[in-house]
Amino acid sequence: MEGIKISERLRMDADTIWKQILNHQFVLELYKGVLPVEKFRFYVLQDYNYLITSMKNFSVLSSKAGSVEAMKEMLEIAHLEATSEFENYEKLLRNLGYTIEDAIRSEPTQTNISYGSFLLATSSLKTFWEGLAATLPCFWTYAEIAEFHKDKLNECKNSLYFEWASVYFTESYQKLVNKMKGLLDNANIEYEKLKGPFIIASKYEYMYWSMAYNMGKWNIL
Amino acid sequence: MEGIKISERLRMDADTIWKQILNHQFVLELYKGVLPVEKFRFYVLQDYNYLITSMKNFSVLSSKAGSVEAMKEMLEIAHLEATSEFENYEKLLRNLGYTIEDAIRSEPTQTNISYGSFLLATSSLKTFWEGLAATLPCFWTYAEIAEFHKDKLNECKNSLYFEWASVYFTESYQKLVNKMKGLLDNANIEYEKLKGPFIIASKYEYMYWSMAYNMGKWNIL
Amino acid sequence: MEGIKISERLRMDADTIWKQILNHQFVLELYKGVLPVEKFRFYVLQDYNYLITSMKNFSVLSSKAGSVEAMKEMLEIAHLEATSEFENYEKLLRNLGYTIEDAIRSEPTQTNISYGSFLLATSSLKTFWEGLAATLPCFWTYAEIAEFHKDKLNECKNSLYFEWASVYFTESYQKLVNKMKGLLDNANIEYEKLKGPFIIASKYEYMYWSMAYNMGKWNIL
Amino acid sequence: MEGIKISERLRMDADTIWKQILNHQFVLELYKGVLPVEKFRFYVLQDYNYLITSMKNFSVLSSKAGSVEAMKEMLEIAHLEATSEFENYEKLLRNLGYTIEDAIRSEPTQTNISYGSFLLATSSLKTFWEGLAATLPCFWTYAEIAEFHKDKLNECKNSLYFEWASVYFTESYQKLVNKMKGLLDNANIEYEKLKGPFIIASKYEYMYWSMAYNMGKWNIL
Repeated sequence: MEGIKISERLRMDADTIWKQILNHQFVLELYKGVLPVEKFRFYVLQDYNYLITSMKNFSVLSSKAGSVEAMKEMLEIAHLEATSEFENYEKLLRNLGYTIEDAIRSEPTQTNISYGSFLLATSSLKTFWEGLAATLPCFWTYAEIAEFHKDKLNECKNSLYFEWASVYFTESYQKLVNKMKGLLDNANIEYEKLKGPFIIASKYEYMYWSMAYNMGKWNIL
Repeated sequence: MEGIKISERLRMDADTIWKQILNHQFVLELYKGVLPVEKFRFYVLQDYNYLITSMKNFSVLSSKAGSVEAMKEMLEIAHLEATSEFENYEKLLRNLGYTIEDAIRSEPTQTNISYGSFLLATSSLKTFWEGLAATLPCFWTYAEIAEFHKDKLNECKNSLYFEWASVYFTESYQKLVNKMKGLLDNANIEYEKLKGPFIIASKYEYMYWSMAYNMGKWNIL
Repeated sequence: MEGIKISERLRMDADTIWKQILNHQFVLELYKGVLPVEKFRFYVLQDYNYLITSMKNFSVLSSKAGSVEAMKEMLEIAHLEATSEFENYEKLLRNLGYTIEDAIRSEPTQTNISYGSFLLATSSLKTFWEGLAATLPCFWTYAEIAEFHKDKLNECKNSLYFEWASVYFTESYQKLVNKMKGLLDNANIEYEKLKGPFIIASKYEYMYWSMAYNMGKWNIL
Repeated sequence: MEGIKISERLRMDADTIWKQILNHQFVLELYKGVLPVEKFRFYVLQDYNYLITSMKNFSVLSSKAGSVEAMKEMLEIAHLEATSEFENYEKLLRNLGYTIEDAIRSEPTQTNISYGSFLLATSSLKTFWEGLAATLPCFWTYAEIAEFHKDKLNECKNSLYFEWASVYFTESYQKLVNKMKGLLDNANIEYEKLKGPFIIASKYEYMYWSMAYNMGKWNIL
């Protein structure tokens, strides 16, 4: 596979899953502005918990980074999440009639715990590169979803969803994703070791949207 | 809750889930000797992967143990898994017509990856006690299942299942479970912090049996 | 020890060591402005390496923090080090005639590696609180040194040393130290478990100044 | 460097340090049987603490191993240390008039803490291979010391020292060292990343003998 960047190859190998993510009912209805608000509210409470796990995950990645440059980038993202992303969430929660305490009290679903645990276990016990490969699909699919559905969004009348989605069009978000891809493109490790966590995380992304759409609880109890 | 051991309290708080585990269709059919063998074969291949994750988990727990005694116990279990349990599995695989390579090649299901990741993430990033609380339900439910269904097993005509289940009646297995419970009973941490991972791991145990019964693959693809 | 804060008790128990730190020859000569510049140059190159280890250490602490609040504080400090502290160092290096590459190339001394490894091993494998207790002496002794020698500094004619030391008088630095102390004051763990790493890290602080004063290399070769 | 095994190349690059280790006064006097017994007693108490750190270190390495085979080998060594090596130590302690409690109570020296922290920090935060490279010099130098001084030992009249040293001549010990070397020879990582920790650990080995010979305490207090 000469001349193909690692990130491009990963994207190709995950294509069947990503197509299903791009066309997931939750995503479609969200960008069209017709998603029932209670599903969005459920999603936002879950995502608040995911955000905290993600901050933890970038902390682990930072502690494992092999170069000062990579460590700084991981810390930059973790800090971004801990500050501006956190504030955005608190504002969004308020707009949805929630307090921050509601978010903290809300129990993460099975899918949320599983996905978060997968990220943390991979980053903690495998190499930095494998951890980064597991981390990438979340950020990258959000960017691709935004690009894929931009026409729908332009016609979207739901200001709440419009505002939420707009973040993923910003130059700063695109830059962030490109930085992570660029970092991974320089990974010094067999491709197959990266493919595993990238594919698994892509599947978790799909399941996460399904969980949100079904306002899913544990399969038991 | 004066006078109640931590492990007893955890058992009580997980009772609703544990009752469902004890009466899970896979478990019932297995102990009655009527479980379709392809379901058992599927279970064994998955469990081989779980065993490897479990060895990793006890390695993490050993590295986090606060006393030499606890470290030795964790290493003892890890080593037991790496030697006699591994040999038992290889023998079982052969009896089922599999090679060890089949087991290594078999892909862990979503539930398997999720449960294993939950154990590893908890043990890696939380305290030793929280990791131990997450680890206990797997060992303990197997012992309780064996006790609960011993009458059924006595009448079980399926020698394969009989032999497999017999392990969980042995004194050495009961001792192992009691050691882990005894260790956790001395945990120096708020009860609620132990309850969380114990309950979540109990739910994963239930899901694991369901996954085996359904010979489950990822929900996507 | 009713009514005494954990941090105060730690400070008292480390008093003999801290008195030697406050009066260490390197510190005295630095604040008087008479420290030979080659010793300061050696110190700065070493400290650049220490800063990178410290960023890593706060990343580990962030990944282990039990509350969102503590995680955010750890990330805040790690990010501060990765941005403004890093820039200060690069400026300082330039003022001393070094490039950033000189700093990266300079080999950490035995004492530097040992101290850094102690921080990382404690934060990685012990509890968050023990890691925090190991981390505190570096920050806190610099604040106390500044307070202890402020009269000397006012008369210090060496603008390079004056500028370097001024940082530790700033309100933002004092706030940072107080935040870390406040966090540790709420630690839910036996005092003796905190005392160990606090005392050991205090000894490493003393050794670090000695290493800088002696421009120390490994004791072998 | 075609055709040279990684372990051979590491050995060559550390040659200057290893020659000093082979000829360290503590080692020479020990193998000649003339080492003052109080120095040996001091060494044994320290080494008991080192053994516990080493068990922890192999637990970390096991949790990071990329293959089942490597994980099993790490667990095998950890378990060996936790069982037969531990018993040997307890017997040796008794022969020297110590109880196991004396060993537990004895404070590790600065060099001991530093070396142990270096192993744990490297294994925890760097790759498995770098951790293994840091771990190898301890085991390997003991084997080479035994080989280098075997003539002296044959004439050694001190049965205590003779018995202690004999362990490192056994086939099982040589096998153990060869397994670790063989594992590292297959490392998939740039050589320079292995050289760093191997050299630093070799220096710590030298310092450890010096610490024992000087019955060294912290340089402060």
